[in-house]
Order: sequence, then C-alpha cells, then structure tokens
Amino acid sequence: MSDLNGYYFEDLSVGMAASYAKTVTDADIVLFAGVSGDTNPVHLSDEFAKETMFKGRIAHGMLSASYLSTIFGTKMPGPGCIYLSQSVRFKAPVRPGDSVLATVTVSEVLPEKNFVRFDCSCTVDGKEVLDGEALLLVPAWPE
Amino acid sequence: MSDLNGYYFEDLSVGMAASYAKTVTDADIVLFAGVSGDTNPVHLSDEFAKETMFKGRIAHGMLSASYLSTIFGTKMPGPGCIYLSQSVRFKAPVRPGDSVLATVTVSEVLPEKNFVRFDCSCTVDGKEVLDGEALLLVPAWPE
Amino acid sequence: MSDLNGYYFEDLSVGMAASYAKTVTDADIVLFAGVSGDTNPVHLSDEFAKETMFKGRIAHGMLSASYLSTIFGTKMPGPGCIYLSQSVRFKAPVRPGDSVLATVTVSEVLPEKNFVRFDCSCTVDGKEVLDGEALLLVPAWPE
Amino acid sequence: MSDLNGYYFEDLSVGMAASYAKTVTDADIVLFAGVSGDTNPVHLSDEFAKETMFKGRIAHGMLSASYLSTIFGTKMPGPGCIYLSQSVRFKAPVRPGDSVLATVTVSEVLPEKNFVRFDCSCTVDGKEVLDGEALLLVPAWPE
Repeated sequence: MSDLNGYYFEDLSVGMAASYAKTVTDADIVLFAGVSGDTNPVHLSDEFAKETMFKGRIAHGMLSASYLSTIFGTKMPGPGCIYLSQSVRFKAPVRPGDSVLATVTVSEVLPEKNFVRFDCSCTVDGKEVLDGEALLLVPAWPE
Repeated sequence: MSDLNGYYFEDLSVGMAASYAKTVTDADIVLFAGVSGDTNPVHLSDEFAKETMFKGRIAHGMLSASYLSTIFGTKMPGPGCIYLSQSVRFKAPVRPGDSVLATVTVSEVLPEKNFVRFDCSCTVDGKEVLDGEALLLVPAWPE
Repeated sequence: MSDLNGYYFEDLSVGMAASYAKTVTDADIVLFAGVSGDTNPVHLSDEFAKETMFKGRIAHGMLSASYLSTIFGTKMPGPGCIYLSQSVRFKAPVRPGDSVLATVTVSEVLPEKNFVRFDCSCTVDGKEVLDGEALLLVPAWPE
Repeated sequence: MSDLNGYYFEDLSVGMAASYAKTVTDADIVLFAGVSGDTNPVHLSDEFAKETMFKGRIAHGMLSASYLSTIFGTKMPGPGCIYLSQSVRFKAPVRPGDSVLATVTVSEVLPEKNFVRFDCSCTVDGKEVLDGEALLLVPAWPE
C-alpha cells in the first residue's frame, strides 16, 4: 500500500504549499450539522440568523477548519502523517455559496523530531476568513 | 426568536461546564470524509490503516474537535455566541465504535470585551484523546 | 421474499425500456463526493470550476452512470439480476439543478447464457449527456 | 487556482499508476443507495440477499467503479482532466467490510488529441473484483 503514501519528511521544505477549494453549499452545512451535532440556528435557521450580527446564515467555522485537515490528509504531507495540533482563528463568516480556498504552507521543519509546522489560511474572494497554525509528524523516507 | 438564545455573558462564571457525548460510527467517518473532503486512507481503509502505527482505522481528529463547536453552539454558551478561536492537540486516536465525551469548562471571563475562555477536552473511556482552548464572544443581557 | 424479484429472463424482449429520473442537487454532489472520495474541485468549487472549459461546477459523471445501476437493480430487470459489465461515454456535463432522465433499453437477449444486453442513455432536457451499454445475467423463471 | 491542477499530458507516460484504498462499510452502502437511488435488496436486505447466489449482502458494483473516478479526479491525472469514457466488468462481489484497492495504470498516450488511456482494476485481498478501461483528455502544459 506504500504507493498511497504522501510526502516524506525529507521532501518538505519551508515555503512549500498546497490548497483545497470548496464552495460551501446548503448541503454542506446540513451534513456538517448532522455529523457534528452542531445545530446552532445561526447555521440552520434563516429566521434566527437574520436577527444576528451576521444578518443571515453562516457556515460552521469548524467546517472551514476541516479543509485544513483535508489538505494534510490527502495532499501535503498526505497519508502517513500524524496530526499533532491545530489552532484556528475565525476572522470573518463564510456564507452559503461562498467559495473557500484553504491553503497550508510549510513554515518550519524540525528535524530532531520529524515535526513540520504549517501556516494555515482560508480565504473567500481573497479575503482571509480563518488563519491558524498546525504541527504534524511526518515520517522519514523508509530505509 | 429570543427563546433560542443560550447563556448571556453575565450568566457564565469560571468552572461552569457542559458536555456532548457521541459514539463514532463508520457512518460518522464516511460522512465527515465526505463533507470535509479528507479521504486519508488511515480513516477509510482497514488495509492501509493496519500497517500504520495506529494498527487500524481511526476517526478524523477534526471530527472530535467539531464536538466542541457543538457544545458552544447548542449548550454553552449556546446560540448567539461568536466563535473567535480554537486550538486543539490530538493526543490519542479515536477508533470506530469509541464513545467520545467532549467537555468545555469556563476558564476565564474577560468583562471588558465580553470574551469567555474555555478549557476543552475529549475523552474516550476516561482517557483524554484531545485537549485545547477556545475563546468566544458572548453577548451581554439585552437591556 | 420472491415478491421482491424483478423480471425473469423469459419476461424480457428487445425494445423493452425503463427509466429513472433525478434532479441533481448540490446535496447529491456533496454526498457522491463523500461516498466515492472524488473531491475534484470541478465538482466542489465554483471558483475553480468557472475557470475550466465547463465554466462552472459539474456533477460527477459516475453519478449519472449510477442511475443506470438504479434502473437495473430496482426496475428492469430488478432484484435477482447479476450486473456483469457497464460501459459509459460522458458526452456533456450535468450541472447542479439539471434533471437527468436515465433510460435503459433491451438491445439483445442471449438465451444460451441468460444474458441480456441493454443500450443505456442519460439525457438532460432531451440532450444526451451519457450513453453506454450494459450486460446482465437475468435468472430464468423458477421451475 | 492553478496550484490545484493535477498532472499535465506531458507528465504522463505508460506504466505510471495511482491507487485509492477504501474499506466498504454499511454506511457506504446506505449512502450509495441513497444518492444513486439503487435500493436493490441484494445491497440492503440481509434476508433477501442470503437467498441469492451471493449468500449475503454485497456492495453496489458502481461504488467500486466510482473509486476509479476518484483516482482520476484527485490523483492521476487529477483536477483539470476530462473524463471521456469508462468501461467496467464486475468479476466478483464486494461485501461489507471488504477493503477495496482501486488502481489505474496509464496504458497508452495519444498525443494527437491529448488522450490518455488507463487500465483499471479493483482488488480485495489481492483478488480482482473489477477490471476496466478509461479514456481521459488531459490538458497540455500551459504555455
């Protein structure tokens, strides 16, 4: 199954980046509410949400955050890495119909432990809606 | 719609806590893979996963993290709060069939901005699989 | 359980046809991406897709192809048949909101092996978006 | 968005291969039944299925076929390619709990039209359950 593996530690260097693009539909919001259990009406009820500061329904912040996991798990580093930590700041709402572009960029490689640090960002139309940082353990090339 | 609102800032004090409990099934993992796009075979393929250090399939770490959002959005503080940031450390794997207990506890109230800080934790059978911290803006009682 | 069975081999003759109709929503696309793992941004990101030759998001071709399986498994021949092979050509894109009409027509019956060949087609507004051919094994009337 | 693109035509040569691995759970079968509409009881009813030649429930053949689309859309060639045709032969059943390994291998490159032909295969425990062939249009390197 080794052809499923992603990047190895030695393959990664500061500045390398990967992205995932997703338009957030109502279906995504319903499914994320279902699988997480987060049925906050700001995500699910137009009537409730229009009276909030957002003036309408917004997607779950953790949905955008999950796209970072998608990049780590499928693109860079890809299968074989171990997700150690993730921090995110929610900077602006994502609304149904918005196209999120999630990007992770290698910010530091720590050879003593095979740790790699990533800067994380999600944008909508070029405006940053989320930023954060992640730490992953990335396996070394097999001997 | 005000009866949908959760706690107001003045209702919260250090040490208050709320929980969400969820058994992670294969259906949750498939749905989370779908909505996030994270199809890492460590989540989806027994054959791949058994050759990793986890010796079998594991749930997405961000699925457990999303249960924190569920508590914030539905229990404490509940609808009306604004999610500002979340950090998580993934400490141990969650496997299909595991029952996750997510708990958030008020660790600090910051009256000048109506910010509330929460300690976050997910356990399986009493063992911590995730810890972290979150910051939320919680509205004051309406005048 | 025999009342669940569909057509038997002797019931089928060249020219018999059956159809399945489905409007492809965003929910279908998200769910098909999830269950298949095909998160190609041409299906999931407006922003990416609008820069392709399709000028916007399209459904997975295999989603339309799966409607053929639906006819075989539920209508003609129905439960009890064995799906041997399927070929499809993707002739035009299916977009969110399009109503797909899938139709299969018996093109050949092969009595020596109880095989039945079907012409397959999917249309949107009368325009063919997919064609193909399928071969099924259809059980004979029980003695 | 160009960093989302996959392989270009000039990157591909005969013998290159890519894989996708998936354990088929009951959740996958239910979700595929839902999104396709294929509610054939051989997939959904133990009671019906145990009386068939399969002696138990089997996954939809088109579910395994959809993993081929997943490789094309996300790995090789990846985003930007156009799916022209797919043929599949269903050679053996896939049962709940089986781990499918789908693999596509470049079998022919046709420079006059930027077409690439792939041999397709799905195996379970090394036994081939599906084979087939696909034709894709793969864009040339941007000028």
